[in-house]
Amino acid sequence: MIQKHPREMPVRIIPLGGVEEIGRNMTVIEYGNDIVVIDAGLEFPQEETPGIDYIIPNTKYLEARKHKIRGLIISHGHLDHVGAIPYLIERLGLPPIYTTKLTKAMILKRQEEFPHSRRLHIEEIKSDSMIKLGQLKARFFDITHTIPDAIGTILETPFGNVIYPGDFKIELDVKGKPMHIDQYTKLGKEKNLVLLMESTNAEAPGFSIPEKTVHQNLEKIIAGAKGRVITGTFSSLLERIIEIIKIAERHGRKVVIDGFSMKANVEIAKELGFFKPKKDTIITADRISSYPPEKIVAICTGAQGEENAALMRIANRKHKYIRIQKDDAIILSSSIIPGNERNIQNLKDNLARQGAKIIHYKVADVHASGHAYQEELKLMLKMLRPKFLIPIHGYYFMLKTNADLAESVGISKENIAIPLNNGSIIEVTKEKIHLLKESVPANLVMVDGLGVGDVQEVVMRDRQALAQDGIFVVITIIDSQTGKVRNSPDIISRGFVYLRESQELLRQVRHLIRKTVEDATAKMHPINMDYVKNLLRENIGKFLFQKTKRRPMVLTVLIEV
Amino acid sequence: MIQKHPREMPVRIIPLGGVEEIGRNMTVIEYGNDIVVIDAGLEFPQEETPGIDYIIPNTKYLEARKHKIRGLIISHGHLDHVGAIPYLIERLGLPPIYTTKLTKAMILKRQEEFPHSRRLHIEEIKSDSMIKLGQLKARFFDITHTIPDAIGTILETPFGNVIYPGDFKIELDVKGKPMHIDQYTKLGKEKNLVLLMESTNAEAPGFSIPEKTVHQNLEKIIAGAKGRVITGTFSSLLERIIEIIKIAERHGRKVVIDGFSMKANVEIAKELGFFKPKKDTIITADRISSYPPEKIVAICTGAQGEENAALMRIANRKHKYIRIQKDDAIILSSSIIPGNERNIQNLKDNLARQGAKIIHYKVADVHASGHAYQEELKLMLKMLRPKFLIPIHGYYFMLKTNADLAESVGISKENIAIPLNNGSIIEVTKEKIHLLKESVPANLVMVDGLGVGDVQEVVMRDRQALAQDGIFVVITIIDSQTGKVRNSPDIISRGFVYLRESQELLRQVRHLIRKTVEDATAKMHPINMDYVKNLLRENIGKFLFQKTKRRPMVLTVLIEV
Repeated sequence: MIQKHPREMPVRIIPLGGVEEIGRNMTVIEYGNDIVVIDAGLEFPQEETPGIDYIIPNTKYLEARKHKIRGLIISHGHLDHVGAIPYLIERLGLPPIYTTKLTKAMILKRQEEFPHSRRLHIEEIKSDSMIKLGQLKARFFDITHTIPDAIGTILETPFGNVIYPGDFKIELDVKGKPMHIDQYTKLGKEKNLVLLMESTNAEAPGFSIPEKTVHQNLEKIIAGAKGRVITGTFSSLLERIIEIIKIAERHGRKVVIDGFSMKANVEIAKELGFFKPKKDTIITADRISSYPPEKIVAICTGAQGEENAALMRIANRKHKYIRIQKDDAIILSSSIIPGNERNIQNLKDNLARQGAKIIHYKVADVHASGHAYQEELKLMLKMLRPKFLIPIHGYYFMLKTNADLAESVGISKENIAIPLNNGSIIEVTKEKIHLLKESVPANLVMVDGLGVGDVQEVVMRDRQALAQDGIFVVITIIDSQTGKVRNSPDIISRGFVYLRESQELLRQVRHLIRKTVEDATAKMHPINMDYVKNLLRENIGKFLFQKTKRRPMVLTVLIEV
Repeated sequence: MIQKHPREMPVRIIPLGGVEEIGRNMTVIEYGNDIVVIDAGLEFPQEETPGIDYIIPNTKYLEARKHKIRGLIISHGHLDHVGAIPYLIERLGLPPIYTTKLTKAMILKRQEEFPHSRRLHIEEIKSDSMIKLGQLKARFFDITHTIPDAIGTILETPFGNVIYPGDFKIELDVKGKPMHIDQYTKLGKEKNLVLLMESTNAEAPGFSIPEKTVHQNLEKIIAGAKGRVITGTFSSLLERIIEIIKIAERHGRKVVIDGFSMKANVEIAKELGFFKPKKDTIITADRISSYPPEKIVAICTGAQGEENAALMRIANRKHKYIRIQKDDAIILSSSIIPGNERNIQNLKDNLARQGAKIIHYKVADVHASGHAYQEELKLMLKMLRPKFLIPIHGYYFMLKTNADLAESVGISKENIAIPLNNGSIIEVTKEKIHLLKESVPANLVMVDGLGVGDVQEVVMRDRQALAQDGIFVVITIIDSQTGKVRNSPDIISRGFVYLRESQELLRQVRHLIRKTVEDATAKMHPINMDYVKNLLRENIGKFLFQKTKRRPMVLTVLIEV
């Protein structure tokens, strides 16, 4: 194979995940013999993938080129950016991971759940670090998101910088100046080739609510509360959790942190010195009743109505130590993640039935997104001044909306490449950005128990079908000499009809089985068992549909004796 | 039994559906020997009720008292108010139905799908009708909703009026005056005992967007469109559909109506004279290409991303006659019904991938809710001036929010009764409103194929379990003399693992079966088949979980020979 002249050889950018969904973010940047991967996130299961644990990026393309991988850079510690590491890092040949102190600690904490995994090589970086990754060089910059220690990446290529801020929002500092603006405008003066920009909130007009506003509102509520304040939020919103602890301290309240992941995150942040609570501020849930209500703030997981999370257990009166009391104020400091509407409704209903006062993001600014709104996206574009834009992180319509925004601030249409799908290949040279027709493998890779990637589509389809009308299994013993049915056929059914109340239906099915089998075998010699089996399945399926207008999965087992 | 003196005998109000959900609305009003039922709606299946068609109100209470039922009043023709009629009207003893002309036609149209049902007795009423229902009298008033011919009900009781507006919003007329305000203020001067008020939008501040604004915006878009305008909306928004047809006529465009339910509704409205399109305005979809793009408006079902609806077929390039073209403008004239987020995202993504321009309710006012916002709810309260309030139609938190609104305009807490659940009993006398501790049966009644109410909770639980990890069926033949396993056990599995790639696992399971059975039967005489069966199920379940960390439903069949 003839090596292309560097001038002709484009930089390849391949989003392996995160452009057909919110989550499982992973982007490949390839130049010649060098591949740099940024982020390795997971996505939570969807309606069409019932029963699985996670969906992770399809890394087939990388697995075939693992000798080229110079490193995996992680932008911050959220699961949609780090969550796939345990499942795929070995498949990628265990490349070095580059990330910041807090993110490193969170990755290592999670890795403890995978005791049989090989040791990770994590190199700690800061926003002023510089690392060589083959022919490429990486530098970093500070990012404001909802978790400390988030970084953006600048990948130097022969054509200019490829910039990946990751998840970001633009927050103002105490002087009213955008935070990190000096870094951004300085970076804007470099030769910036491509910006890979997130699109999560590309449809939201204006600026996002400043996190500072949320902190102020939380402080107001906590300061004015007569009784306990119970807040529900995401364990990933570590900045806010830290702030609530500080607010509680300022108002002489103890803090109960309830929820496994939240406790773990707070513990890590504390250990690494990201905040320093007084020794006796944080108390365990079992001690909540040792203090008067006005001295308590609880921070709980479960604001999405997750079944076994702390807040849901409180709502359902299943919490070991916390019951709703008069004067409790419940703050739902979170938004609604699509798909969780019903669970959150249940949560609110059950809390309200017990008389709790509920403050949620629709009635007060007690939550802010960590993702840039339209004006912030435009501002970032104007500050970084890239030649080309690739919108990432979001559904296609969001990417398209992000592209339209960029056009509105002067980036021409031909300088924008919207990935059509996960696995889309985008080639960039000094002059041109180009979305290739072909793409790399991107079919779903699912984690289901111990299996990674082995859950086939047929298994998913079967689960969906089983959820619709259940299953109907018929076991028939046939005398292979006479073709007669012996005994009464066994019928097992689940999720179809309530068997105890369907004895007449079962009787008719047994009759149908006998008739079908014996009619078919009467003049058959030798008996073609496959034929009989298929005929039986078909007849039973038709009969059940006719009787019930339901279509359970029908399985037939013939046993010859 | 001693009949209570009328003065002591309260009016009983029992919401049988619609106070723990949006949908399956049905309210019982009982006084002495007379029961009046208002509305008989259905609810669409939820996450926790997979595979069913609908959920309908539980009418056990009414079935036991059907001799008392004087009539079923229907407020308007939407499925959450009429949809349960075919399933429960005979169980209620086929009482007379009172409703308006359009609603009647829609009920009868739907009844055609139930050819074996008995004939309905529907008595047509108008807003100035008066009917006697035992000791009670019903009068009516006009209501603005998203479908023509909606009416509110005034039920005269000895203590005063029980008022049920049904679904409503307050729209201004051409002079800027609230429509029907004269009726409302006149009614406000009567002796109004209880208002049963909907709570769907009780959490939405301000006034809802006027439907008129939506019409104006739609007209602007259609007037300015260079190519075809394809609108997706609910087939139930009949007022808007009629208006779009009128707009198209004004701009010389032909109209394609695509979607079974939409066509049916338009046909009924046309036949009854609710609007009169020109003879050649409405064309069939197959003729869409006979006209230049700027002469076409299509009105399609599927704005919620329903799999086989017209718009989704267009998005997925499966529509027989319509493919997305350059300059097509797609208007999603609808909101997002919770639970449909993912499907709507798919719809938008696929339309955008083909280059369509999409206008949806977040970027322009092309949709308005048909349900009153907070200021409208307050206005209605002030106009009707009831003594007591029962918030209905919504989840508990919505009802509670509606109650809080009422308090804010001067209704005292003790004059408000919030139903705790479907089946809650509220008793009202002249002086007092009272939520009883006991309630009437309200467990889920589901329609699943031909079965109504026969889908037991265990069937739902099984479907959910099957959707999680699938099923694993083991069929073992045991020699009842020796206790030995004959042949190789049959294994059937669906939705668990991909069997073709799991041969080693299956081999191990077969080995486990043989060992479990033969170890157990070795010293057993006679063989206790139930014991062996349970042991086998337990061992296989444990083994599969250990190997896969999945928990399929394990079923074991033992056949003795």
